[in-house]
Amino acid sequence: MSDKTPREIISRRNRPAKAALSRDIIVSTALGILQKDGLSGLSLRRVATALDTGAASLYVYLANLDELYSLMLDRALASVMLPEAGNRPWRDRLKKYLVSYLHVLYERQGLAQLAMSTIATGPNSLRMWEVLLGLLKEGGVDDARLVWGVDMLLLYVTAIAAEQSNWRATGQDFGRVGSALATLSAEQFPLVYALFQGGRFSGIGDGDARTQWALDVIIDGIKANHNSF
Amino acid sequence: MSDKTPREIISRRNRPAKAALSRDIIVSTALGILQKDGLSGLSLRRVATALDTGAASLYVYLANLDELYSLMLDRALASVMLPEAGNRPWRDRLKKYLVSYLHVLYERQGLAQLAMSTIATGPNSLRMWEVLLGLLKEGGVDDARLVWGVDMLLLYVTAIAAEQSNWRATGQDFGRVGSALATLSAEQFPLVYALFQGGRFSGIGDGDARTQWALDVIIDGIKANHNSF
Repeated sequence: MSDKTPREIISRRNRPAKAALSRDIIVSTALGILQKDGLSGLSLRRVATALDTGAASLYVYLANLDELYSLMLDRALASVMLPEAGNRPWRDRLKKYLVSYLHVLYERQGLAQLAMSTIATGPNSLRMWEVLLGLLKEGGVDDARLVWGVDMLLLYVTAIAAEQSNWRATGQDFGRVGSALATLSAEQFPLVYALFQGGRFSGIGDGDARTQWALDVIIDGIKANHNSF
Repeated sequence: MSDKTPREIISRRNRPAKAALSRDIIVSTALGILQKDGLSGLSLRRVATALDTGAASLYVYLANLDELYSLMLDRALASVMLPEAGNRPWRDRLKKYLVSYLHVLYERQGLAQLAMSTIATGPNSLRMWEVLLGLLKEGGVDDARLVWGVDMLLLYVTAIAAEQSNWRATGQDFGRVGSALATLSAEQFPLVYALFQGGRFSGIGDGDARTQWALDVIIDGIKANHNSF
């Protein structure tokens, strides 16, 4: 791993950048930049600069920024914990696996946002699809619904991670939400008023319970809905 | 409306900026910038410059960029088409309403991304909540599930819009996806191989049918799942 660690983070050696250049070190360097500065701080030029080279020399290894995103996402997905084999029900293993994916996206600044805007096509994302297809099959979902079902589960979990990451990054002002609800007109918005004035608003924040519930909602909905695939 | 149209777009008059300044013109100007340059091009300074004033003078009308986002989103949500009253089933009206929301987010560059990272608290988003709560109630969803249900429907539809907007903006390279699938190892990824080599990959792209199916999945899942709210 130390060979692959970008110079900007540890190396004090004066090894020439060209000698070190590879897809691996480009991806590691880009992930380091993402971690530090988020997605808006990431560009091919920025990666090239961190590697003491020019953007042009990166094109030997990458077609474009989109491909770099895809490689970064796939590298990060290596950390998703595979479901342990064994006799726990398929639904529990599926939900635990998706929650592990949620945590991987949430833990690295900008990664969920990146996942919303790119498609990882590397081995780790293919393995995720393989695992998810297998678990839904085990749950009795027929082939016609497997692809849409996996796609829907991944998009929804990615969206939770992106929403929560964005709130963390921008310091979303829930006080503003609270005061908007506090001054709510019961005449204009009777249903919203009835539900949120009842102090239920705090419930919205219970992320883990909501995620578990939402995954059951999608899983049961998939099992209940055939499609015209 | 013409009074509210930001100078950068039409006015050749030399009306002093201060006289024109208001929340309305700030939001209109910001939406114009979003439309032209996307979310990354939007900043309070950029809005102030477009209005021939300094960022400081915007703080008379706004607490911060987060509040501007919230006002922009709420303004845009005014275009979501209310369900026509009448005897169409609640489920059809709910899905049509959410598809209208999807189109509003998708039609303006950067808006879906903005919706992923902010909470609109203005009258138009409150009306959306009121409508969605009413339709789910009409569908027999009890109070305990209404808030999580509406939140889930909105997040999922917002995520579809954000994903599709991002693909449009970055020109997501589906050719890369295709070639990754074409060179897929049947031994390593048998389920993915079986499903995608069958030419089913194109099916992933059928956005409208998938959206309708996904909304039915969530609606039926909500009806099937009580929560511990």
